[in-house]
Amino acid sequence: MVMTEMDQLQMEKIADCEHEIFALLKQRYSPRTFALEKLRDMHLKQLFEAARWSASSNNLQPWRFLYAHRGTAPYGKMLACLSDFNQKWAKNAPMLMLTAYRTKDAKGRENFHALHDLGQAVAQMGVQAQYMGIGMHQMAGVNWKKAQRVFEVPEAFHIATAVAVGYYGGRLEDLPQELRESETSTRERFPQADFAFKEAWREK
Amino acid sequence: MVMTEMDQLQMEKIADCEHEIFALLKQRYSPRTFALEKLRDMHLKQLFEAARWSASSNNLQPWRFLYAHRGTAPYGKMLACLSDFNQKWAKNAPMLMLTAYRTKDAKGRENFHALHDLGQAVAQMGVQAQYMGIGMHQMAGVNWKKAQRVFEVPEAFHIATAVAVGYYGGRLEDLPQELRESETSTRERFPQADFAFKEAWREK
Repeated sequence: MVMTEMDQLQMEKIADCEHEIFALLKQRYSPRTFALEKLRDMHLKQLFEAARWSASSNNLQPWRFLYAHRGTAPYGKMLACLSDFNQKWAKNAPMLMLTAYRTKDAKGRENFHALHDLGQAVAQMGVQAQYMGIGMHQMAGVNWKKAQRVFEVPEAFHIATAVAVGYYGGRLEDLPQELRESETSTRERFPQADFAFKEAWREK
Repeated sequence: MVMTEMDQLQMEKIADCEHEIFALLKQRYSPRTFALEKLRDMHLKQLFEAARWSASSNNLQPWRFLYAHRGTAPYGKMLACLSDFNQKWAKNAPMLMLTAYRTKDAKGRENFHALHDLGQAVAQMGVQAQYMGIGMHQMAGVNWKKAQRVFEVPEAFHIATAVAVGYYGGRLEDLPQELRESETSTRERFPQADFAFKEAWREK
């Protein structure tokens, strides 16, 4: 069996589970390198379809996505809304996406769960992506006010994150030196005892 | 092949996809009936493990879960925090859970993405649940202020939802008459064109 650099990278990123979980969840991580290949339209439709069938409060489906392929003007504008740090690597992603949510329901009442439900939709997209060999790297580091202005996103919506999307691939040497280490580092999480409480709250 | 009532119910809930998606995402729905069986401890650990490996902004892992099994005092207290409507059916769930998020980072700065990241963790849990034949029904209808007081949840955390959890099963006749229809109704979503925009925003 021939191991490519990418095989090696992906193996290092497999979650060090306390308890066994479903393979797609275990293997998912947030890559900073991608294959050059443009995302196929069919795969893109499948990603959004996965988001589409997510659960939401009162089935309001508050999630919205704005995307652009590399080499287009909107892609450039989106890239320019990312933090300097994120631009360094995200410029190699075949696709960039902004995620947003509708802040109110049809009656104009604040939808507290909109941001939560957007997160769920993106997570479902992430599972579908992993299933198709597509990596997604979500970024909090986006100037949302600028993005909101540049793309004329109406006030009824709020941009939450940016996401770099592309088939797993690429090479470490495509990354600036200072980012290579994190790309090969082990993924870390708090133990379950820190966040799952039986019957009584256990944290100050 | 013998079709049980549950097989029939689950078939009716399969997403009517525009584009094919991964089976676990397609089959997931939010049941209001459950098998009576208590959730096995191993499965519970696997659910939380799936949440544990979710992505989060700066890897802050802001999600928290408080759970109780049916027949215990904390379960009763949790049930009493749900809306009257939700209590009607959720009282049959083998497990109830409150989901919450830490609102600030270690430096005391507001973590805007905490609610979003909680949503992602719960969605990952939902995929793992589906894989193990477990249904989850998330509820916005929870009196979070009351729950926060009853369970002495510190101010640094904010309760977002309640979730009913249990193995798929149970029977329609366990539900009050007025809830049976929604349990067998077709799942509906807006078309992709309504929420996935290429290059330019397309909604007022």
